[in-house]
Amino acid sequence: MTSTAVGPGALGAAALVNGAPHFNGWVQAPSALVVETIARAGFASVTLDAQHGFATFDRIVEGIAAAALAGRPALVRLPLDGFSLAAQALDAGAAGVIAPMIDDAAMARAFVAAVKFPPIGRRSWGPNRGLSFSGLSRDGYLAEANRRTLALAMIETVEALAALDDILAVEGLDGVLIGPNDLSVALSGGAAVDPALPAVVKALDAIVAAARRAKKPAAIFANTPTLAADYAARGFSLVCLGPDLAFLQQGAARALADVGEASARP
Amino acid sequence: MTSTAVGPGALGAAALVNGAPHFNGWVQAPSALVVETIARAGFASVTLDAQHGFATFDRIVEGIAAAALAGRPALVRLPLDGFSLAAQALDAGAAGVIAPMIDDAAMARAFVAAVKFPPIGRRSWGPNRGLSFSGLSRDGYLAEANRRTLALAMIETVEALAALDDILAVEGLDGVLIGPNDLSVALSGGAAVDPALPAVVKALDAIVAAARRAKKPAAIFANTPTLAADYAARGFSLVCLGPDLAFLQQGAARALADVGEASARP
Amino acid sequence: MTSTAVGPGALGAAALVNGAPHFNGWVQAPSALVVETIARAGFASVTLDAQHGFATFDRIVEGIAAAALAGRPALVRLPLDGFSLAAQALDAGAAGVIAPMIDDAAMARAFVAAVKFPPIGRRSWGPNRGLSFSGLSRDGYLAEANRRTLALAMIETVEALAALDDILAVEGLDGVLIGPNDLSVALSGGAAVDPALPAVVKALDAIVAAARRAKKPAAIFANTPTLAADYAARGFSLVCLGPDLAFLQQGAARALADVGEASARP
Amino acid sequence: MTSTAVGPGALGAAALVNGAPHFNGWVQAPSALVVETIARAGFASVTLDAQHGFATFDRIVEGIAAAALAGRPALVRLPLDGFSLAAQALDAGAAGVIAPMIDDAAMARAFVAAVKFPPIGRRSWGPNRGLSFSGLSRDGYLAEANRRTLALAMIETVEALAALDDILAVEGLDGVLIGPNDLSVALSGGAAVDPALPAVVKALDAIVAAARRAKKPAAIFANTPTLAADYAARGFSLVCLGPDLAFLQQGAARALADVGEASARP
Amino acid sequence: MTSTAVGPGALGAAALVNGAPHFNGWVQAPSALVVETIARAGFASVTLDAQHGFATFDRIVEGIAAAALAGRPALVRLPLDGFSLAAQALDAGAAGVIAPMIDDAAMARAFVAAVKFPPIGRRSWGPNRGLSFSGLSRDGYLAEANRRTLALAMIETVEALAALDDILAVEGLDGVLIGPNDLSVALSGGAAVDPALPAVVKALDAIVAAARRAKKPAAIFANTPTLAADYAARGFSLVCLGPDLAFLQQGAARALADVGEASARP
Amino acid sequence: MTSTAVGPGALGAAALVNGAPHFNGWVQAPSALVVETIARAGFASVTLDAQHGFATFDRIVEGIAAAALAGRPALVRLPLDGFSLAAQALDAGAAGVIAPMIDDAAMARAFVAAVKFPPIGRRSWGPNRGLSFSGLSRDGYLAEANRRTLALAMIETVEALAALDDILAVEGLDGVLIGPNDLSVALSGGAAVDPALPAVVKALDAIVAAARRAKKPAAIFANTPTLAADYAARGFSLVCLGPDLAFLQQGAARALADVGEASARP
Ligand SMILES: [Mg+2]
Ligand SMILES: [Mg+2]
Ligand SMILES: [Mg+2]
Ligand SMILES: [Mg+2]
Ligand SMILES: [Mg+2]
Ligand SMILES: [Mg+2]
Repeated sequence: MTSTAVGPGALGAAALVNGAPHFNGWVQAPSALVVETIARAGFASVTLDAQHGFATFDRIVEGIAAAALAGRPALVRLPLDGFSLAAQALDAGAAGVIAPMIDDAAMARAFVAAVKFPPIGRRSWGPNRGLSFSGLSRDGYLAEANRRTLALAMIETVEALAALDDILAVEGLDGVLIGPNDLSVALSGGAAVDPALPAVVKALDAIVAAARRAKKPAAIFANTPTLAADYAARGFSLVCLGPDLAFLQQGAARALADVGEASARP
Repeated sequence: MTSTAVGPGALGAAALVNGAPHFNGWVQAPSALVVETIARAGFASVTLDAQHGFATFDRIVEGIAAAALAGRPALVRLPLDGFSLAAQALDAGAAGVIAPMIDDAAMARAFVAAVKFPPIGRRSWGPNRGLSFSGLSRDGYLAEANRRTLALAMIETVEALAALDDILAVEGLDGVLIGPNDLSVALSGGAAVDPALPAVVKALDAIVAAARRAKKPAAIFANTPTLAADYAARGFSLVCLGPDLAFLQQGAARALADVGEASARP
Repeated sequence: MTSTAVGPGALGAAALVNGAPHFNGWVQAPSALVVETIARAGFASVTLDAQHGFATFDRIVEGIAAAALAGRPALVRLPLDGFSLAAQALDAGAAGVIAPMIDDAAMARAFVAAVKFPPIGRRSWGPNRGLSFSGLSRDGYLAEANRRTLALAMIETVEALAALDDILAVEGLDGVLIGPNDLSVALSGGAAVDPALPAVVKALDAIVAAARRAKKPAAIFANTPTLAADYAARGFSLVCLGPDLAFLQQGAARALADVGEASARP
Repeated sequence: MTSTAVGPGALGAAALVNGAPHFNGWVQAPSALVVETIARAGFASVTLDAQHGFATFDRIVEGIAAAALAGRPALVRLPLDGFSLAAQALDAGAAGVIAPMIDDAAMARAFVAAVKFPPIGRRSWGPNRGLSFSGLSRDGYLAEANRRTLALAMIETVEALAALDDILAVEGLDGVLIGPNDLSVALSGGAAVDPALPAVVKALDAIVAAARRAKKPAAIFANTPTLAADYAARGFSLVCLGPDLAFLQQGAARALADVGEASARP
Repeated sequence: MTSTAVGPGALGAAALVNGAPHFNGWVQAPSALVVETIARAGFASVTLDAQHGFATFDRIVEGIAAAALAGRPALVRLPLDGFSLAAQALDAGAAGVIAPMIDDAAMARAFVAAVKFPPIGRRSWGPNRGLSFSGLSRDGYLAEANRRTLALAMIETVEALAALDDILAVEGLDGVLIGPNDLSVALSGGAAVDPALPAVVKALDAIVAAARRAKKPAAIFANTPTLAADYAARGFSLVCLGPDLAFLQQGAARALADVGEASARP
Repeated sequence: MTSTAVGPGALGAAALVNGAPHFNGWVQAPSALVVETIARAGFASVTLDAQHGFATFDRIVEGIAAAALAGRPALVRLPLDGFSLAAQALDAGAAGVIAPMIDDAAMARAFVAAVKFPPIGRRSWGPNRGLSFSGLSRDGYLAEANRRTLALAMIETVEALAALDDILAVEGLDGVLIGPNDLSVALSGGAAVDPALPAVVKALDAIVAAARRAKKPAAIFANTPTLAADYAARGFSLVCLGPDLAFLQQGAARALADVGEASARP
């Protein structure tokens, strides 16, 4: 397994900023074959969701391997306030981690502290599979890891929008990832879950512009393919689709509908 | 949880013979949420596959519960020559079991022996969740279980086709389930995996007719919705679709294609 | 599975305040059949203990399903300072969560923030089984979830007793749950584990009175049936018994004693 | 951990024949703490049930350790026709294995073949924890293992009763274990599950006498303490009580009843 | 992951016959990182042991992925009489399976039946990861799988030695693997576990010669490096070393001894 | 299992200060047999690593039992900022816990609060296996636990070195454990992972001296046996070696090298 395919650096922040939109498959029920199926379905990377999904640490270890078997790097979304999983995921070979509900620069700095080695942060030494994926020596990994492993902060609250430039300015934070569902809940005062809410849509272009100014990628989760296309067109460089359970439901419902259509044909 | 919804008897052989076609969702990667998703997607029942899938006993116990939560009974496909799992699945609340590669009446009798209580078979007493799902007393469960839990033999070899009437005549065997992929491998001498093979298609009507003569349901696995509709039209009363990993792949691929289409729109 | 039986709302705070005492079965070793056995033994609900028990997230997902199969809602007790599990448990279908060692209003507010959606808290959107249990639409779930999912703060320290009214006044906190063992350790300065300690007993009526003033339920864990009856008589509306391992030990010891008695009979 | 406490030999057949009745705690839901609780509750040994219980191999490995921590040897009941688990359980440190539904001498010999090393059987070399529990050298273990690890055949069918002397005469078979529930099903032609059935009771003394003639212990599973006392009085040397889930149910129901009684006291 | 590295065909029988000795790392406690460590330690392939090791199916699925991540194919040793795991292991991507205690041609044919597709055997269609590892189409996999997935029969009894030529002549059996420990137990009538037993050593050259006549590889398990070198020199083409737990013990003991030596230096 | 062997108190701080150096085996991939192998290899205790290793809570429960079977107490290293696991590990029978990255007295006090009962800390009552290991009554355990269960703070940052005396002075903290790898990263400003760095070596004697002044043990992790001997000579009373995966790699590589040497001999 070459390091460029799945190891640290596979998902470089610089490449994300400059490259074509990158589509990521979001996984909430990560048994090995589910992850391998998503990883082979056409996505450039996968995310294992430990916040709203069922990605416990055992399954993260297994899921990173499953994605790597298909030549795809894996991101891990941390639980709320669950920074202690960040280095564990990187030690297990994740290409980066995503922290939900980062509201201000202080939280972003705390997140970076958990992800990056000194002098930027306080990640502790102990890469296991992360080191073997990298193909690097110990000192080589230490030198490269901060650059090659992504720390992405989720922007999904009113507070975060207000602090966006400050958050993006935090050294060691590699980019932001918009949670449009939570953003819609926040911007509607708890009245609606709807990424099409005008207040949400309006915020998107400002976020992309802020990320460009900071020379850092802006990523986003998309509820539907139509939204995904729209987000890519607006300049988001990493667009997450899913989750797996939605694909599963859609595939199953489509099959049953196709049976009905085929049965109705004369 | 009422016994009629998910317990023994939920999938009665008599109802299958006389009723409208019953569509079953086939699950190979059965974590709880995957099974719940399939069980809520429109299928009348689910199958947990322990032959070609990853349904170890722990996951069968969890998967039967997951299906039951969605009000759906669960079948379990046994591994090749894996009759010892049969009673374990029924003890855990399965509505029936499916044995692969039953080639003759002797194998069918051995399968029945593992599934049915005396005097028909030698299933041993020890229902756990099977009993609580049933809502019956101990003696009531003993009296009803043989009728309420299905034993389905897979017909998927040349030998099985030749012995079909004998197999269907075995007391305690509730029906047959055709494996068209293996049947195509068998009928082509190992040359092709293709349920559309004329020799396979030709066998189907004879199988349905034989099952009707025996007053037992004929079931079948369908690779595609078109085949599923065709099988239902031919008189198969239980048609299995899937597996889950195919639905997942199709749902994911469809989403990515939809992104492409949406992006291409002006 | 109807939403009123096990979903959000199954354990409404208002009903607890006004209704007859509710007895809850406490589970520390939650495999599926253990939870199903407790849930069918006569308790109105179960608690899965992730603080002093072995309820890891996988087992919580499995245990909530097991309780639901028996028609019983499940609460989850979080680990010390483990608020990140709160929303995960609710996403997996828990009817509420219990936080240990809440010492003051600030901690209670942090707990509520993890449990309730905006504008009360900052729970993030992503219900999975919670949504399917509820039988509601996405917007319906968002509108109802704060009311239907319980946040109970454990009162078990000197500091908590002093801050009781402030804690009960926190918006979004649904009630308190007394830990009499820890309270006895605290009130004895680490000298005894004994819920019968006069200082503990004396605190109970004050707690019930404070909860009544706040129109919120007071719950409590009971080491013995005698204490449980006493607590119910004092006005606690939710009384937890157990844990499962104690029931198991008592049932086994009783059986062995009965063998001895039967053997001694002439 | 000394070998005499939990290793091979802990449950010697000779001692069972000559000693006072030995009471064994039956476990169907074997997480570590459940097994430790049963092992500390007063039983001389435990059985991990892989036929009607949930003792998969992972849990057998864990359960044997849990029993050993409490100084108790563990037996493992195999699934129906599941002889391949026999040596695995012994390799993991079990003191013996129990095979269900042994109907004749040929089945008994096949069972022995799976349990005993040459020249008696064909157990393959590879003890892991079995060897470390024994405190013996490799050659010492090979010399002693056949004597120290028990092979117990379940007698629970009409056929088995007829072949009892032949089964007991099989070299390497250490004893028999009666399954009175299945025996009642068998002797009633599938009409009742009731160990108090006269035909069952009548068979018991003949079984004990046959075992005495063969100088091998007769063991039995007891549904209730009263039956257990009766079986011990009849000369059964190993009496199994349980299962754990019944103890759990009884302990929980007792606690709830005690709450009711305490509440009713003035 | 290219098919030539880890998929079916990675361990071709023809290459084994003609190539330099191939050293295989034997794994009994296969968590992901243990397998990855062995797979990167210099072995050309790994074996996951489900007979005397702890390789349950979940861990086999995980272990095959772990070996593949390190670019190494994985074999799986089946439990005694556990042929039903054979196709499951191949479906999960194993490069071959090893059956213990094959005593005659009839057992060898039954083993081959479980491993090979028609017309040679009766393996059932359902490759999952096996197919994705292969990089082939469905029909391509069907055409190639029998040649690319190894069926190795263990020769470790007196009966097997007597039937060696017959076993080697079984169509579809790809080679034999000698179990020198069990062979020593068998040849000593249960008196010793010692691969250096003259009767064992004497049998080795005859086995190699018989395999050469049959143009099939002879493999063997080696207790020590010295034996491994000797076996390679005698013409065994596949030599298995281990198990992992022995390497672990030796590495730990070496480290402690080195501490002692370093401490003793002035 | 006697309490002095593996229970609380097995690893008393006082004994560590005064006794001969104690060597501990470090485990990152803790399946049962891996832990048992390390525990029997000559170490006086083991550590289960939940920071950089794969010791999830299920495996900690299993691993503590595995160590205890071999008569060895187990420590648990917590994840970064993962104090909520501390009491869970102690409840499961750990002899102590290790917290990484303790930078100042405030963090040390927060750590102690999670580990010690009142009045020193706020550990909550609920020992399960900890209590049964101890052989004590409930009140006895409460009285003894603070003394018998170790809280060790890792010193591995520039800040921690500066605050060393303050940290050691924290009541209830039992000792310090040096992380020389992270210390080298910190002292080199992220430039090197090298415990032989002069700045690191220079710090060691000061640390030992400070610990002596505080009458608390100084422990350390050693990358190599040579370093371990050096650390013991400098006065560290607890020296950790490993991890297991390094022993495994070394044992495997040594075996392969020995094969090569044996093959090269004439
Ligand atoms: Mg460190
Ligand atoms: Mg039975
Ligand atoms: Mg969110
Ligand atoms: Mg062998
Ligand atoms: Mg088939
Ligand atoms: Mg408490």
